[in-house]
Amino acid sequence: MAYLKDVLDQGGAFEGPLLVKSCERGIASNGSAYLSMQLQDITGSINGKKWSIEDTDGEVLAPGKIVRITGTIFKYKNSPQIKVEAASPMQEGEYDPSDFYLSCPIQDEELYKRVKETIALIQDPDLKLLTETVIKENEEKYFTFPAAVSVHHAYRAGIVYHSLSIAKDAIDICKNYPFLNEDYLLCGALLHDVGKTKEMDGVLASSYTMEGNMLGHITMGTMIVGEAGERIGTPKDKLTIIEHMILAHHGQPDFGSPVFPMTPEAFVLHVLDDLDAKLNILETSLKDLKVGEFSQRQPFIDGRPFLKTK
Amino acid sequence: MAYLKDVLDQGGAFEGPLLVKSCERGIASNGSAYLSMQLQDITGSINGKKWSIEDTDGEVLAPGKIVRITGTIFKYKNSPQIKVEAASPMQEGEYDPSDFYLSCPIQDEELYKRVKETIALIQDPDLKLLTETVIKENEEKYFTFPAAVSVHHAYRAGIVYHSLSIAKDAIDICKNYPFLNEDYLLCGALLHDVGKTKEMDGVLASSYTMEGNMLGHITMGTMIVGEAGERIGTPKDKLTIIEHMILAHHGQPDFGSPVFPMTPEAFVLHVLDDLDAKLNILETSLKDLKVGEFSQRQPFIDGRPFLKTK
Amino acid sequence: MAYLKDVLDQGGAFEGPLLVKSCERGIASNGSAYLSMQLQDITGSINGKKWSIEDTDGEVLAPGKIVRITGTIFKYKNSPQIKVEAASPMQEGEYDPSDFYLSCPIQDEELYKRVKETIALIQDPDLKLLTETVIKENEEKYFTFPAAVSVHHAYRAGIVYHSLSIAKDAIDICKNYPFLNEDYLLCGALLHDVGKTKEMDGVLASSYTMEGNMLGHITMGTMIVGEAGERIGTPKDKLTIIEHMILAHHGQPDFGSPVFPMTPEAFVLHVLDDLDAKLNILETSLKDLKVGEFSQRQPFIDGRPFLKTK
Amino acid sequence: MAYLKDVLDQGGAFEGPLLVKSCERGIASNGSAYLSMQLQDITGSINGKKWSIEDTDGEVLAPGKIVRITGTIFKYKNSPQIKVEAASPMQEGEYDPSDFYLSCPIQDEELYKRVKETIALIQDPDLKLLTETVIKENEEKYFTFPAAVSVHHAYRAGIVYHSLSIAKDAIDICKNYPFLNEDYLLCGALLHDVGKTKEMDGVLASSYTMEGNMLGHITMGTMIVGEAGERIGTPKDKLTIIEHMILAHHGQPDFGSPVFPMTPEAFVLHVLDDLDAKLNILETSLKDLKVGEFSQRQPFIDGRPFLKTK
Amino acid sequence: MAYLKDVLDQGGAFEGPLLVKSCERGIASNGSAYLSMQLQDITGSINGKKWSIEDTDGEVLAPGKIVRITGTIFKYKNSPQIKVEAASPMQEGEYDPSDFYLSCPIQDEELYKRVKETIALIQDPDLKLLTETVIKENEEKYFTFPAAVSVHHAYRAGIVYHSLSIAKDAIDICKNYPFLNEDYLLCGALLHDVGKTKEMDGVLASSYTMEGNMLGHITMGTMIVGEAGERIGTPKDKLTIIEHMILAHHGQPDFGSPVFPMTPEAFVLHVLDDLDAKLNILETSLKDLKVGEFSQRQPFIDGRPFLKTK
Amino acid sequence: MAYLKDVLDQGGAFEGPLLVKSCERGIASNGSAYLSMQLQDITGSINGKKWSIEDTDGEVLAPGKIVRITGTIFKYKNSPQIKVEAASPMQEGEYDPSDFYLSCPIQDEELYKRVKETIALIQDPDLKLLTETVIKENEEKYFTFPAAVSVHHAYRAGIVYHSLSIAKDAIDICKNYPFLNEDYLLCGALLHDVGKTKEMDGVLASSYTMEGNMLGHITMGTMIVGEAGERIGTPKDKLTIIEHMILAHHGQPDFGSPVFPMTPEAFVLHVLDDLDAKLNILETSLKDLKVGEFSQRQPFIDGRPFLKTK
Repeated sequence: MAYLKDVLDQGGAFEGPLLVKSCERGIASNGSAYLSMQLQDITGSINGKKWSIEDTDGEVLAPGKIVRITGTIFKYKNSPQIKVEAASPMQEGEYDPSDFYLSCPIQDEELYKRVKETIALIQDPDLKLLTETVIKENEEKYFTFPAAVSVHHAYRAGIVYHSLSIAKDAIDICKNYPFLNEDYLLCGALLHDVGKTKEMDGVLASSYTMEGNMLGHITMGTMIVGEAGERIGTPKDKLTIIEHMILAHHGQPDFGSPVFPMTPEAFVLHVLDDLDAKLNILETSLKDLKVGEFSQRQPFIDGRPFLKTK
Repeated sequence: MAYLKDVLDQGGAFEGPLLVKSCERGIASNGSAYLSMQLQDITGSINGKKWSIEDTDGEVLAPGKIVRITGTIFKYKNSPQIKVEAASPMQEGEYDPSDFYLSCPIQDEELYKRVKETIALIQDPDLKLLTETVIKENEEKYFTFPAAVSVHHAYRAGIVYHSLSIAKDAIDICKNYPFLNEDYLLCGALLHDVGKTKEMDGVLASSYTMEGNMLGHITMGTMIVGEAGERIGTPKDKLTIIEHMILAHHGQPDFGSPVFPMTPEAFVLHVLDDLDAKLNILETSLKDLKVGEFSQRQPFIDGRPFLKTK
Repeated sequence: MAYLKDVLDQGGAFEGPLLVKSCERGIASNGSAYLSMQLQDITGSINGKKWSIEDTDGEVLAPGKIVRITGTIFKYKNSPQIKVEAASPMQEGEYDPSDFYLSCPIQDEELYKRVKETIALIQDPDLKLLTETVIKENEEKYFTFPAAVSVHHAYRAGIVYHSLSIAKDAIDICKNYPFLNEDYLLCGALLHDVGKTKEMDGVLASSYTMEGNMLGHITMGTMIVGEAGERIGTPKDKLTIIEHMILAHHGQPDFGSPVFPMTPEAFVLHVLDDLDAKLNILETSLKDLKVGEFSQRQPFIDGRPFLKTK
Repeated sequence: MAYLKDVLDQGGAFEGPLLVKSCERGIASNGSAYLSMQLQDITGSINGKKWSIEDTDGEVLAPGKIVRITGTIFKYKNSPQIKVEAASPMQEGEYDPSDFYLSCPIQDEELYKRVKETIALIQDPDLKLLTETVIKENEEKYFTFPAAVSVHHAYRAGIVYHSLSIAKDAIDICKNYPFLNEDYLLCGALLHDVGKTKEMDGVLASSYTMEGNMLGHITMGTMIVGEAGERIGTPKDKLTIIEHMILAHHGQPDFGSPVFPMTPEAFVLHVLDDLDAKLNILETSLKDLKVGEFSQRQPFIDGRPFLKTK
Repeated sequence: MAYLKDVLDQGGAFEGPLLVKSCERGIASNGSAYLSMQLQDITGSINGKKWSIEDTDGEVLAPGKIVRITGTIFKYKNSPQIKVEAASPMQEGEYDPSDFYLSCPIQDEELYKRVKETIALIQDPDLKLLTETVIKENEEKYFTFPAAVSVHHAYRAGIVYHSLSIAKDAIDICKNYPFLNEDYLLCGALLHDVGKTKEMDGVLASSYTMEGNMLGHITMGTMIVGEAGERIGTPKDKLTIIEHMILAHHGQPDFGSPVFPMTPEAFVLHVLDDLDAKLNILETSLKDLKVGEFSQRQPFIDGRPFLKTK
Repeated sequence: MAYLKDVLDQGGAFEGPLLVKSCERGIASNGSAYLSMQLQDITGSINGKKWSIEDTDGEVLAPGKIVRITGTIFKYKNSPQIKVEAASPMQEGEYDPSDFYLSCPIQDEELYKRVKETIALIQDPDLKLLTETVIKENEEKYFTFPAAVSVHHAYRAGIVYHSLSIAKDAIDICKNYPFLNEDYLLCGALLHDVGKTKEMDGVLASSYTMEGNMLGHITMGTMIVGEAGERIGTPKDKLTIIEHMILAHHGQPDFGSPVFPMTPEAFVLHVLDDLDAKLNILETSLKDLKVGEFSQRQPFIDGRPFLKTK
């Protein structure tokens, strides 16, 4: 299979399967209609134009479909574009999904295993039960949804992978600063982003849900955990402390948390959440550079370009 | 009964009932212990010192108690202070509570009647049921708690009085701008501060609860309404819109709302909530001035002094 | 007559009258000159290109003129554009001006009547005389100028319509909060934007005047009212209070007011001015949507999209 | 005469004339009344307490009076205080006013002469006439009022001294940057603070006037110059440019200017106004230090202490 | 020995050794002089007043001295105070310095050993040599100076203890995010605060040096490392990357770094520096509380009180 | 020679020498490669496209080269563009460099003379030696480098021209405010931007160096002066004061200075640096306008357009 990254800069004829991210109709200066679409595989994405529309295009080129594209790639104002000559549907089994969208670097079973192991480290039975219950009740989405539409961990199983990474950091930090309460920190690490299971519209997460936009994952996650905790009888103070950790995990009002952290563990969770997300962004943005080169400016990390040092 | 405001500036002997707001132990330079307390009636408050401690003082001078105080008032560094010579307990019935703390300007029955009338204006049956249910389930606190520990509507029944005042404004505004959805606005006006029933520690509201501090009334109100709405079957979108109004009613993250208003009614609710609170502050701070005089600087209204014009 | 909104998305041939907002010369890659213009009717606007220039084009396509346009509409980079083949002048009487620019929803006589009725509500004879005098002396512009070049009430008679709407709100608010001084509030509501009669360059208000840019309508309005008040003998303190309301009506320095509000009425005027402007923006931006749809992001209301709820 | 600065730190008996800045009544713990007052001469100020009140004290110790004080100085919580035993009135002629409040370092005739010379440098007859007229019409206050109640040039003739100092800087700057229009800059330098003649309540300037608080000297100065200019026929554009310089001379909304500078001269006037005020503050605060010592923190210059280097 | 914390709240007679932090002269209302001093041992501090001054007091009560104090403790405005009756000098050997000021929780040899072990982990010979050299050349101060006058790690050997703690975190973080360059991170962790050896005036660090105030430890640390690196031939790019880490370690201009982090390691160093400092503050402020109690508001961590959870 | 400004708006054939600022490869929609380049002379700049690539183009069209260009100019989206038909190399001597990039308005000898004269005004021998030494050791770059890549004084010898202009202002200011230390101010004025010799990549300054980006000219300048001062024995305090002036010359952290000014001279240097840079921007942006016209908005001066008044 021809990967986009191998052909984007060369231009020329292209034939191969691509995932349709979006597809819209436009009107050309000669009055006839055309289609403008965004196509991608795991190695990159490209804007496509199809100048002759066929009746079946609406169905074939629906967002989320994987389609065999024939066309020509060229540069239009410094960005590659593909003139689509033909688009034919493909069946499941004819392609490997992992060729078209990113997944987290770990297999599903391993994710389940690590979550189980992390929960096992929680000594407090109330917090252990709360963590188990909430994850169980949201299991499918918790183990498959991305952590964001874009920006960081924007791939299948991003929520769980990001949560486990924070939990790993948390275990180390608790060793270095033994006055921290590891049980709260692990419970908070695993549950802090559970609201994202209601914020995004699916595993591909092309957009946010209406309640995602109007309430946000921080409030929704607090509500999910609060409702579950009341139902299973988590003691009031412990539940409030976990709800607070979820509410405060963005660290300050300007970043979406209505309250500032007020426990050491809520503060540490915020720092590790921010650190893990930003290191994920940096790792991705430096991946294809050589040592000594600068990345693009990073809009989420002070707007600076970063130097690759390793 | 001798009211504080009549004697504070004159100084001299005092005898009469006062409410104990707080009472703490100190050590004098001669090594003996003394009590320092805050005393109030509805007209003012004063710091008291009791230099000889009796065994019963701990019980008699407990915060919340109304006590007969005998002593001498004088000025200490520009503030009045009372040297307490004796403090004897009083029984319910011996005093009128309204002599010691503020209440809202309307009687209880009238408040119930107005809430009922306002709910009756809501046309949408789902929103009407939701409003009725939430108020019913939190009735006692909803009709007696203050809207704040201090600042605005800091008196008995402050929540309901403030909510009704906003609803009254809302009805007028909907007449002037008919594209607004009155049902959402009335439901939001009545429910927006319901979380304060969990945020404050009682009708006297001398402080915030632990969950009040760590979660805040905005999140708790959203959770109360969300839980009730799910239980009684409020349609998903309507419920989300009301939850959003509660979440957004402080208008912006810096003032405690994790989301900005995203419906016209959420925006109007925020404006009227802010307007009603600030006019309550202004009315109180100008009450005892003459036309043409300036008030103290108002820390919650841009820190300016305000001119009395009427 | 063919309205733009009906043809913009379809593309194809167009013939009909349009208002010329602007028209500029460019040079094509083959070295020959062309005209680029902005054309509008009351339903929308479109960019036009005329590739062959005629001697009379300078006069015919002058900004402000209504012209019969023949051409072809197509989409250029997602925006509609019209290739202008011919442009012929039209005479007054051949078209209805209200097809080309917005006017306020109320007829002129009604506006005069309402202003008169509002002034009649002012009890204080000094404030009544001041209000009458200032409006009389700026009558033509006060009753026809828009409230802004764009953003809100950007149509004929926008100043007076917006001022009356605020006055209407003010009357309601004074009923709900009787400590407010209605005379000051009505005088301030009617006069607060009088400086805009010097800030904009005409009823169509395509731009701001030099003094509008360098002094601003807030300072100019204060000067107009101050000069008139001194001339007709408005008592010093009353005049200062009205001048202050005009100066403070944007609420804070960052929004153009050199002083914060320092009377309850100045504060309320600011809140109502802001509320009326933003509800005008919201009404306009939601007008053509269906219930449940989101508007574009609103740059003047926290940059959020708004949900249509009614 | 015994100057305060010579006796403040030593303590002990004091007898001599002092200016009464303020005087208020208090109640001592023994129930009897006392007076608390602020006393000053040109070298310093001290808080005074008079424990026995006489009938004549109200008249003798009125703010603004110069009074012969007999008493004892001691340190109370690190601040000097004087126990006033007697206070007797003094007549004009018995004391030299310059012993009690600051004046600018230049004699009156010299100030008049320099203003005249500066005006003579203005080439443009319209701007020259405007400058002369405005200064003439506000002559007494312009030549005697301080530039502020405190902070900078807070002494008799502070406005004119500060304005002349800026004009002097302006002449140098125009030599170094010849594209600047010296006429506008000199006119603006001399007139920029003329509004302060209405902002302060007198030569001693113990406080701001009501219109000073509610309108501010920037708006009032613009109005004074605008009214005069229209009356004497200053051409419209020239007048707007000078009004703009006055409006913009604080440089930005946060510092009180509703508009940012929009001419090179308005920008330079703002920079020089700020520079002259701050150097006046620095000179004063470093005056009594030795080289190598740090001043107090300067609240108006970034809150930093400054090192004396000369 | 009687520790202050055991006697502060009881009041009464005191006799024992205390460290003099500061001592100043005042004048009492009877005109005689007295001394006001700050006294401390490792468990707390107290203000002292000595009402009779002896000739030797200047020498005996000099800041930094340990003195045998006899006096009486009482509460003055809620703060304990000691009336000093006698103060006699003590000789080295008569007391244990660790009874009077805080030290880091680790012995000196252990600190040396850990620094050596950490340097041994640096693989890159240039960075290893640079780290060794800079620490060697500043050894005495590097191993004994506190990390701050107050706030965090404000005790003997605070710099090195804080640096080692960050290095420990860094090693864990590099395991979890293997794209990070551990050599740069360890070198930066050990050297980032070396400028503090010039910023503070000694092991007790009662204040900042003149160059500490005027240049700051960030600039001075960069200069120390830059000078050493140039001298020993550290390759230009490596040296720039380390200088950048030191410059950027406060994360942003508002917190003292003239540049934002531009390498992943500079970013991580900033996060860990901030985390370690704040956890040190939290640990200290929660130390003496019970689980479920709130600390004082933390001015350096969003101004919030923190809940003790373990 | 045909200057760009004379032909940009007309379009049509062009032949003449131009400086290549940058040159990059692209791919056209027909699959063949093309070159996109930025070309300039002293009067303007233009984007060029060369659709047929020759083997020698890489060498001929290298950035920094002056090349004879043959082609056609036209407008592409409101910006002029040139279709390059041929590009032939030119030899030194065939063109005058001053036709292609800006230089400061003063000849080299005059710059040397003025620097010498300014140094001669420094009375303090330590500061005079420090100034001489640092300039001598960085002479070539100090006398030829621009003060910025763009924005202000972005031309050959910009550093020295800008420094001399500030020194000239400083001499005037010291006359008006004699408490200022002229020696420090002149030394600071001449040395404050010496770090720019390491920040930019050459006389043409098409970009910043790696250390320029990661350390900044403020830190590098402080290091250059600090190292030189220590080497030649400048007394510690004097050196610290000069280092502080360089560190603080941007006035505040948000503009790149890690410390605020803490001497009067550091404060004045900051004001004059800012004033001189902005007047340079204003002079340039108003140069080609007529009196009464407004400039473009000035992104570095509050984003305002400025009115030409002379």
